[in-house]
Amino acid sequence: MSPSPAFVAIDWGTSSFRLWLMGADGTVLAERRSGDGLLSAARTGFEAVLDGHLSAWPEAETLPVVVCGMAGSRQGWVEAGYIPVPADVAGICTGGVRVPVSRRHVTILPGLALGSSEDPDVMRGEETQLLGAVLETPGSTRFCMPGTHSKWVSMEATVVTGFQTFMTGELYSILSQHSILSHSIGETGDIDPTDRAFLTGVRDAWSRPAQFTHQLFSIRAGQLLHDRKTDDNRARLSGLTIGVELAGAGVGSHEEVALVASGRLGALYRAALDACETPVRSIDADVAVRRGLLEAWRRDRSGGRKNA
Amino acid sequence: MSPSPAFVAIDWGTSSFRLWLMGADGTVLAERRSGDGLLSAARTGFEAVLDGHLSAWPEAETLPVVVCGMAGSRQGWVEAGYIPVPADVAGICTGGVRVPVSRRHVTILPGLALGSSEDPDVMRGEETQLLGAVLETPGSTRFCMPGTHSKWVSMEATVVTGFQTFMTGELYSILSQHSILSHSIGETGDIDPTDRAFLTGVRDAWSRPAQFTHQLFSIRAGQLLHDRKTDDNRARLSGLTIGVELAGAGVGSHEEVALVASGRLGALYRAALDACETPVRSIDADVAVRRGLLEAWRRDRSGGRKNA
Repeated sequence: MSPSPAFVAIDWGTSSFRLWLMGADGTVLAERRSGDGLLSAARTGFEAVLDGHLSAWPEAETLPVVVCGMAGSRQGWVEAGYIPVPADVAGICTGGVRVPVSRRHVTILPGLALGSSEDPDVMRGEETQLLGAVLETPGSTRFCMPGTHSKWVSMEATVVTGFQTFMTGELYSILSQHSILSHSIGETGDIDPTDRAFLTGVRDAWSRPAQFTHQLFSIRAGQLLHDRKTDDNRARLSGLTIGVELAGAGVGSHEEVALVASGRLGALYRAALDACETPVRSIDADVAVRRGLLEAWRRDRSGGRKNA
Repeated sequence: MSPSPAFVAIDWGTSSFRLWLMGADGTVLAERRSGDGLLSAARTGFEAVLDGHLSAWPEAETLPVVVCGMAGSRQGWVEAGYIPVPADVAGICTGGVRVPVSRRHVTILPGLALGSSEDPDVMRGEETQLLGAVLETPGSTRFCMPGTHSKWVSMEATVVTGFQTFMTGELYSILSQHSILSHSIGETGDIDPTDRAFLTGVRDAWSRPAQFTHQLFSIRAGQLLHDRKTDDNRARLSGLTIGVELAGAGVGSHEEVALVASGRLGALYRAALDACETPVRSIDADVAVRRGLLEAWRRDRSGGRKNA
């Protein structure tokens, strides 16, 4: 018999929305995914989006809702701020902000910030994945969370000691769509993690990161001079953007990395890290974010909460 | 008394068109500049664009026309091919292709290519600048020609031994317009070469090029956390893209670089190279390209020419 629903967990990103109806033990009772991210919800209304998704389940009407991600940014529903690093990642559980305008009990979790004036950085959404990942695989000290803005985190036990964001996915996207390379890479399609052009791209940018903006142009030259296939060019572009991230993150010392990712992106990063002599421990990103949201709900029940 | 016009010199780029009515001794008798680059001329017709610009000067009707740049690309007027490197840069003078469809005597100069299968590269237009620069300032062994696709060339006397393209200007442009940084950098405006944010950006990317895609995101974080000014952010973005190019080109050993550039871009690169401990010899890009076109016209008069 399924447990009864205890709370609603939401990962509310810039362009994506994922909601789970959860039991108190972490059982997933139902799931909804849509494109109602921050960008569309800011027009439609956050409450309206939430009501729409929860209307299928009358029993969810009175359940608490725990949200992570861009819904807590300045352009989001309610600004949830940032916890300064170094910090225990579990601090996000009691640092949440209650949405005052909602008739529901909605809490939005804060992000993490590195306030350094020379090298500032922020994350929002990944901190919840990180919390879940730490609970799922304790002992890891180095986490990689790939995506539009990939995050690399250094930890001591549950304390985040530092992190860095790399603009990997976004750079791939704008180079594909808006640069001279758009003529060289053809239609979008899945890249095979075993593809030679992908792996060579990874290793080239990882071993010679200073050459990155040259390596990009070289894709165009390869098409002009050697009539390279668009599929190979696209795979190489993906490999170069990931490879320069791995160089920046300083991998290659055979130190294990905990990779928090799902699906095809996870497979590409596993292959890329392997090509750069880095052992990987894989953690499913969906599992991790749900685990983090569950922890936040649990701790919030027994602790305090700020009001916005 | 002005000399009589001897030939027409044209630098025909992707988005720009520059034409000079030239005397046999290199005197500039008249100049025209417009946006009739490859992209617009491919629609209007190359001959029509040329006729339009030359209609002001009946005496130019029978003059030979020497063209460099993207008009010689596959998408241009007539494809002028590439001369494989290593090669004497003066080889472009007799490697030109006659435009068969024109009633004028039009010659388009070829580009240069590095056919390496691992690291291919091409240039088209800059080879003519380079020829002019070598004639203007003999003895330099390292040339930088900044732009949308910046070129760095290694030479022994007049022989091009290698070159590299960096996607600097284009990367700055697409990051400014299409990435998350577009919200952080405000209106386009001139960057001051003495700006601290610009010079710090140059040095940061030059000294730690593997961090480039992180440094980009850090501009966004700096705005969120420290409310940095958009002018500073734009200057830093420009500095980072130039700095990673200088890292890739390997500057910093106090070896002199011959910088072929004009106007504000030249001033930015002079300041950037100075910040990276690299002495600069400046050559005006306009002077250089005209000198190259003059040389091509002179040598072509006394030598042979391929027909397309």
